Amino acid sequence: MRSIITGTGSYIPKIIKKNSDFLNVDFYGEKNESFETSNDIIIEKFKGITGIEERRYLEPELQNSDSAAIASKIAIEKAKIDPEKIDQIIYAHNFGDIRHNDNQSDMLPSLASRVKHLLRIKNPDCVAYDVIFGCPGWLQGVIQADNFIQAGIAKKCLVIGAETLSRVVDPHDRDSMIYSDGAGACIIEKGINSNKGILSYASQSFTYDEANYLFFGESNKIIPNINTRYIKMYGRKIYEFSLNNVPNAMKDALDKSGLTINKIKKILIHQANEKMDEAIIKRFYNLMDAEIPENVMPMSIQKLGNSSVATVPTLLDLILNNKLSDHEIKEGDAVIFASVGAGMNINAVVYQF
Amino acid sequence: MRSIITGTGSYIPKIIKKNSDFLNVDFYGEKNESFETSNDIIIEKFKGITGIEERRYLEPELQNSDSAAIASKIAIEKAKIDPEKIDQIIYAHNFGDIRHNDNQSDMLPSLASRVKHLLRIKNPDCVAYDVIFGCPGWLQGVIQADNFIQAGIAKKCLVIGAETLSRVVDPHDRDSMIYSDGAGACIIEKGINSNKGILSYASQSFTYDEANYLFFGESNKIIPNINTRYIKMYGRKIYEFSLNNVPNAMKDALDKSGLTINKIKKILIHQANEKMDEAIIKRFYNLMDAEIPENVMPMSIQKLGNSSVATVPTLLDLILNNKLSDHEIKEGDAVIFASVGAGMNINAVVYQF
Repeated sequence: MRSIITGTGSYIPKIIKKNSDFLNVDFYGEKNESFETSNDIIIEKFKGITGIEERRYLEPELQNSDSAAIASKIAIEKAKIDPEKIDQIIYAHNFGDIRHNDNQSDMLPSLASRVKHLLRIKNPDCVAYDVIFGCPGWLQGVIQADNFIQAGIAKKCLVIGAETLSRVVDPHDRDSMIYSDGAGACIIEKGINSNKGILSYASQSFTYDEANYLFFGESNKIIPNINTRYIKMYGRKIYEFSLNNVPNAMKDALDKSGLTINKIKKILIHQANEKMDEAIIKRFYNLMDAEIPENVMPMSIQKLGNSSVATVPTLLDLILNNKLSDHEIKEGDAVIFASVGAGMNINAVVYQF
Repeated sequence: MRSIITGTGSYIPKIIKKNSDFLNVDFYGEKNESFETSNDIIIEKFKGITGIEERRYLEPELQNSDSAAIASKIAIEKAKIDPEKIDQIIYAHNFGDIRHNDNQSDMLPSLASRVKHLLRIKNPDCVAYDVIFGCPGWLQGVIQADNFIQAGIAKKCLVIGAETLSRVVDPHDRDSMIYSDGAGACIIEKGINSNKGILSYASQSFTYDEANYLFFGESNKIIPNINTRYIKMYGRKIYEFSLNNVPNAMKDALDKSGLTINKIKKILIHQANEKMDEAIIKRFYNLMDAEIPENVMPMSIQKLGNSSVATVPTLLDLILNNKLSDHEIKEGDAVIFASVGAGMNINAVVYQF
């Protein structure tokens, strides 16, 4: 029997950071140079490419694992399961818990342990661990949960993706405007209907030339005696890499599923850049020798930015709760989940609702 | 067919930090109080309980993932496999890469990606990810590798445990003397002989009351305007918790293996405290209603301290290479691996050589 998602939950942080909030920031380039262009033009161009109008920042008094616990509680309630019956808690993140205005990552104990503690789960046989796999971490957690379920090791898994990128952004880097905070979670269980659930997946790590396309680096603004590091990226390289490799991974997963391309109703793809996602989808349908169906790619990036591992589960949760206008997933619909990010890692899952 | 360990490797850092190196340190208690006892007496008492005489610190120019790559290269050579044939790289750690004299954890990209990059592995189908599971992380990685191999998802996995605890210790905390740096790795493959390999395992997470027995906290010395956090523990609680729960997990794994207690030739247990390990073994044999065999528990703690996830794989590598006097593992020997640490997590594996 296949692994099925029986409940989803998300936590969308309360603080809205609009593009206009960046109007008075001092931006510098990779070589510490200042820009001749004014911020309103930088922001307009940024919005044109990424699609991002605003993003969410987690409330100062909360940490990553707090938001994850909220999302998880909702997912458990939706799945209508006893939390004591969860066999594994798999928590994807990339920076641990970081306090507001701090720069240290804290994973002691693991964030999965913290969530289990916050959910007041007693059962010691519920194994809780964190996965570090870049932005594709949540989807990789889903794949691992499926592996464990198929192997008979687990029956019910809680898979979380939660991140507070606002706490690792360089305020003097234009790319800081991409990043957002969020938490998404789902319950995955062994199904009773062999047609529904995870049909197939693909998963890859490109490290030979690509390992450091996303990296931890110093501020674009030279500040003497300060060596704090932040999330940094080579955007152009990531764009080209994603275009060259994500469509192939999606095709690989689809081929393994046995479904034809016309069965795919939605593609839920990691949201880092609207133009990039459109180009990926275009190349994917080209590869499949098919037309792009109308409205196949739900986007949340305009309002939610790129919240790393939280993006795809939050997007799914919004759609299933009819909170993303013009998009719905109906019983019988097949969808592709896909993500790309630090590592550089890529994965794709074909799922039948 | 069972999963077998076909190669091991370790990297023992070059810098030896002796107990006497702590003679002039200003130690303070949990409540920031200074001690009336002199350091030579503190150190003597420390050595009496933990068994630790010296520990290893990684060379300043190296980071965690560098040491892991060295250990991994040796494991791959020992296993005589083509690195391009590795399906998964599973890297257990708890603090990422931390530069010497820095306090930020860096996992962007994941440490598994870094090792894959350093090993110059090209195959994108070799999936690389990190696991955060406290000190039992390496053994949990072994269990996951076994899960993937048994499920037919992977044939060859590289499982790494590497940590640089010297970079997260509070120099003003006596517990800092426990911690050490190290890297251990192994190759796990699908075996061809059904008698050999991983026979069974147990894995648990205790978080209800225990989640914060090991935690990230501020220095015992009050330093104004500095809020850097370090590895901290409630030693007495961990001692009691371990004694109450590790023997049960070992028994659970042994019961599942079908072996009788007299078949167990060695117990390779995580080394955090010699007296605690002796008490665990005593209680385990009591539970099994058996006498403790002579020389059943190899110890490396005297010279290597507690290097977290690196301890057990390093211990195994030393024994298999006849570098731990008075201990050997022969063809046909059954052993138990066991570990306990932050989470609080416990695991045990019964393995037939």
